[in-house]
This record gives sequence, C-alpha cells and structure tokens, in this order.
Amino acid sequence: MPFDREIAAMTRLRGLMQQDGLDAVLIGPSASFREMMGRDANMTERLVALLVTATGAELIVPRLQAPLYEEHPVNLLIWDEAEDATARLADRLAELDIAQLGVNDEFWAGFLLRLAHHAPTLDIRPATSLERLRAVKTAEEIAGLQAAADAIDRVWARFLSENRVLTGQTELALRAALTQLMRDEGFETVAWVDVGAGANGASSLHHGSDYVIQRGDPIVFDFAGRYDGWNGDIARVACAGAPEADYLQAYALLLDAQEAAFQAIQAGVPASTPDSVAREILTQAGHGDHFTHRVGHGIGRDVHEQPYLVAGNSLPLVPGMVMSDEPGIYIPGRWGMRVEDIVVLTEEGPRRLTQSPRDLFIAD
Amino acid sequence: MPFDREIAAMTRLRGLMQQDGLDAVLIGPSASFREMMGRDANMTERLVALLVTATGAELIVPRLQAPLYEEHPVNLLIWDEAEDATARLADRLAELDIAQLGVNDEFWAGFLLRLAHHAPTLDIRPATSLERLRAVKTAEEIAGLQAAADAIDRVWARFLSENRVLTGQTELALRAALTQLMRDEGFETVAWVDVGAGANGASSLHHGSDYVIQRGDPIVFDFAGRYDGWNGDIARVACAGAPEADYLQAYALLLDAQEAAFQAIQAGVPASTPDSVAREILTQAGHGDHFTHRVGHGIGRDVHEQPYLVAGNSLPLVPGMVMSDEPGIYIPGRWGMRVEDIVVLTEEGPRRLTQSPRDLFIAD
Repeated sequence: MPFDREIAAMTRLRGLMQQDGLDAVLIGPSASFREMMGRDANMTERLVALLVTATGAELIVPRLQAPLYEEHPVNLLIWDEAEDATARLADRLAELDIAQLGVNDEFWAGFLLRLAHHAPTLDIRPATSLERLRAVKTAEEIAGLQAAADAIDRVWARFLSENRVLTGQTELALRAALTQLMRDEGFETVAWVDVGAGANGASSLHHGSDYVIQRGDPIVFDFAGRYDGWNGDIARVACAGAPEADYLQAYALLLDAQEAAFQAIQAGVPASTPDSVAREILTQAGHGDHFTHRVGHGIGRDVHEQPYLVAGNSLPLVPGMVMSDEPGIYIPGRWGMRVEDIVVLTEEGPRRLTQSPRDLFIAD
Repeated sequence: MPFDREIAAMTRLRGLMQQDGLDAVLIGPSASFREMMGRDANMTERLVALLVTATGAELIVPRLQAPLYEEHPVNLLIWDEAEDATARLADRLAELDIAQLGVNDEFWAGFLLRLAHHAPTLDIRPATSLERLRAVKTAEEIAGLQAAADAIDRVWARFLSENRVLTGQTELALRAALTQLMRDEGFETVAWVDVGAGANGASSLHHGSDYVIQRGDPIVFDFAGRYDGWNGDIARVACAGAPEADYLQAYALLLDAQEAAFQAIQAGVPASTPDSVAREILTQAGHGDHFTHRVGHGIGRDVHEQPYLVAGNSLPLVPGMVMSDEPGIYIPGRWGMRVEDIVVLTEEGPRRLTQSPRDLFIAD
C-alpha cells in the first residue's frame, strides 16, 4: 500500500506523543518530514509543515505546492499567497483544541515566534517524541542502514585497491577519488569526505588540501553520505609506508577503546556510557586530552541524530538504536587517528553494520 | 582591512536594533551569518551563533570549531562537547543584561525553545532589524548583484545562441545545458533551473521532464544561483516555432504588466503596490485567476528575502532595495509564461539589473 510506512511511523509517533503529554507535533522540512511523508519539502520562506495529532494528520501548505501532496494521507490546510500562514495555523490549532504542541528541532524560529504571537496560550516544546521515534529503528530501517553501511564498505575497499600508492598524492586528489567512488556506488548525497595526512590529521577542521603526502604519513579518512534514504558513515586510517612506533602503539590502544565502547553499547545503559568507557581507556594511557570529541552519534535519515554518545546524555540505549563508535587520538603538530564503525544495538547486544577491516592499512 | 565590510554591517544592524528596541540579535548559520562573519557556518546539532549587542559581538561556538574564528573581530564564547550550549548562552545573556533578543528567521526551534527554557524572562522576537538591514543594499552590494545579473544574462545569451533548434529536444536536456552554462559562467550554487514546455509551463511545480518539445510549444525558463556571494535570477520564454495567436496576445499583455510593476517600484510605496498594479492589468484582461503567485521577491545573499512584493506587505520600498519583477500567466492544460527581471530601486527610480531582451524568442 502506498504510504504504509509513513502511516506506521505516524502511529508510532502518536504513542510517544501520548507519553510526552503532547496534543500534536508540528514538523517542518527535515528528515522527520521525509520519514512521515515519504518525500522532501523545500525549506523556504513559505511555511510547509505537517501536523500530526492524536487522531489525524494535516499539512499546512501554500496553494501553489498543494498539488504535490494530493495523494498523501493527510488533510490539506492550504494557505493563499497573501495570507499569514502562521495566523492560519494558529486558528486551526485552536479549532483542534491543541494546547501542548511539539515542534521538530530544525523548525524555523521565524515561523515559531509568529505562531506563538498568534497563539499566546499555546505551550510549545521541542518534540522529543520525534527524536525518540527516529532514534529507534524498525527492522526495515535497520536493513536500510545495513545497505548504506555495505555501500560505504564497498567504497573503502575499492579506494584501497585503486590507491596502492599514497605517497606523493595530494589530500584533495584522494578526496576527489573517494567522492567519485561514493557517486559510483550510488550515494545520493555526499555529506563529507575528509582526508587529513600527517599533522593535518590532528584537526577535525581539516577537510583536505593540496598537501602532498610524504612517506611515513598516517592519513585519517572520514566520509559519509545518504544511500537510498539512509546514511552511511565510516572513518579509517591508512599510512603511506610504515608509521613511527608511537603511532602503532597508539593505534592498538585506539582499537581497544573502540572495541570497549562497542561492548558498552547495551540495552538500558545511558548514552553517555560508551563515551566514558572509551575515554577512560585513552585517559589511563595519557591520551585524555587528545580525545577531543564525543565517541559517537546516532545515524539514520540524518547523519547525526540521537542517541548522541556523549557525557551528560542520560537517554537509555534500547534495541533498535543505531549509532557510530568513533574514538580518536589527535596529537597537535604530529598526527591524528580515528576509527569509526556504525553499530546497531540488537536484542542480543551490539552488532557492527560496517565491516571494513580495522587493521592499520599500510600502503606505499 | 580584514572584516571591514562585516564590521560595517554590524554597525548598521546596531542602528536598526536600537530603533526596534532590541538589546541584541542572535544569528545562526544563514545568509545573515555570512553577511556578518564573511564565512559560512554549518547548520548542525552543535550550536553556532553570532550575538550582536549594542556595543560588541560574541560568537557561541563548540570548542572544536573555535579555531575557525580566531581571526574574526568577535569575542569567542566556547562551549565544551559535554556542555549544554543553550544554558551557557542563557547565562551569558543574563551577564550582558540582554532583555529583548531578536533571532534570525532560520534559527532552529530546538535551540530557541531550550534557550527560552533556560532564560524564562527573556523576550525573544523575530529579528526584523536583520531583515530590514539585508533588504537595503549598499552600493558595493548592488555592484555584487549587478555582477550576478550580468552573469545570468550571459548564461541566457549563450543558451539561445547554442540552442537555435528547440523542437525535438527534451526539457531535461535544456535544463542540463543551462545548468552547465551556469557552472561555466562561474555560479557557485545553482538554486534551480526550471524548464516547462507547452502545458508543463502552466505549473510552477514543473521543473523539467523527458517531454519532447513539439513545434509550436512555448517554453518557460527560470533559473537562479549564487555568483560571488550574490544571487541572480531570471525568467524568460522561448518558442519552438511560432506560437498560437492567443499566446502572442497574452505575451504582449504580460510585458505591459511587467513594465507597469517595474514603474511602480518607487520610494515610499508599500511592497504590495507593484503586485497590485500588475494584477490589475492582468485581471482587467481576464487573466486574474491565471496569475497565481506574487509579482516578486527581494534578492541578495538569499535568492528570496525581503521585500516580498505581495498583497498585504506594507513594508515601504526604499532606495537600495533589489527585487524581482516577475508576473506570469498560466492556462492549465495549455501553456504558461513568466518574464522576470531583477530591479534595483535607486534615488532616481527603478533600474533593471538584468538586461536580457524581453521580446519573445522564436527558435526552430
């Protein structure tokens, strides 16, 4: 049936809304909109938003765009070019007796503040129900993420087999090669392709340059993109010839930290736990200050979403969540390293979706 | 001097903030951020925002991104990976005694609502000061928009000279040709390239298809993109051989309406006036229902911004404003037409930035 998946997602959302005491959730153009509508909406100055209520769904839409949604299982609330769309929406919320309204995080403040102006008693909150819905994937969604992980594994394998010699190449040339392989493998978007050799690998702000790779340079690769609706993301390192001894030692430690964080992805533990587990290992070895970011992030229709694996996040992990596990060690002025896999938490515990070998790859 | 332009923009913004009774304006990743910072920021779950106060400017930024902004003339308010950035910002607003805060329209609701939670007495409003600042261009900014208009004129001229025969081509082929010409002419982004032949031209939702152009088809072309920081946008029609007589008649009427709207772009008139002037002409001729959209929109760092030339917009036009003038006539099932120019309002009245001929182009 058309829109079966979208209708099921709305139904799951309604259950969470009820737990959160929300009468409705308003969803502007975003990955959540795609989840509920099966298509993108343009984020422009013309308000388009899906309103999911306890019993129905309405789409507030400019008249010119209304034909795009005629087939969708939603009631269309069409506004005219010269109308104040937020006033129109406020009236409709009043008719529907909506008192507690959740909105998606990416909803525009300009619309929100004007809506609040027209509906001064409306209680508007972040739609954490939506975040929780998106964080826990169905079997079908996990299959989509597995396909994206398989595709990103294929990109990395092809890259390594086609680039046996790294010494003498520029970061930008390698970046272009990876980008092209992602396109070839069918990625519909490229979120980023970062290549950092030698000291450049120590900065998460470095995306690639005309630096020519020197013999002995370790190189950090991190690339991500959307494949058939679902994101893949991976980080690996490769070296242009044998790296220095302290690099090899640190790399073994990093793999230990990554595996420990992986094992810590268990039902019921707070999302902060895998981060603290990896951080403890790196800190004990004197690399606490060299691990400068959270250990991971959820991934799905967005490349970053809940659960964020970061200190302070008390969200409990539950089966169906999919997230990255990517500790790193960065020594300013010398080198960097990061190993990232995508992990699903199943009823039986954590399982890696990405399967690329984690052994340090030493090319020429 | 580095950042001269950005500092000047902040100074102008402060003047408008004072008129609006705002103590500060908060600007997330957006064209306004580019205007004030001279660079883009990534829109992600990690809060980055510029706070412009009456006397200074601060950037709230995650620690990992802070090095990007070291040279900028702003105070850095750095938050750590495990910190609640909105709580940190709320504390800083309290220290600075900010009571009335404006935010840019595109600011994320998730950040806004969490900030409001941490600062319950803060009065947060849409930063219309920012909208007004952006709506009125400096001489240097008008030069940037002129360069973008010149570039889009070159694209259209090259397209016509390279496509003497339209009959038998698909819309998608023409769309690809225009897109390539935009890249060749140096556009850094392509906002859209819409090609609608015959009845397809009657729908503003039609962007191009594998429809093969038939002899006699009129074709609507509309394309826009960013050139060296400033947007260009144009619409023209061309025909694959002579169109029917009623098309020619309607086209003459459309040119009259476009010219009348152009002449109505005068200092002191409300932004709604050019729309009503064009609409009156088309309505008198029986095409009121066939002109389905506003007559124009402001253009600058964003391809759509104030002043919107639409019924109900009482914003007075002032010299320095730059906007599109683009009436259209759409007959469902038959054909469409739209002619769009970019117009600057000068002290001496309106002046077209785009100069492509408006005569109906009849190809083979």
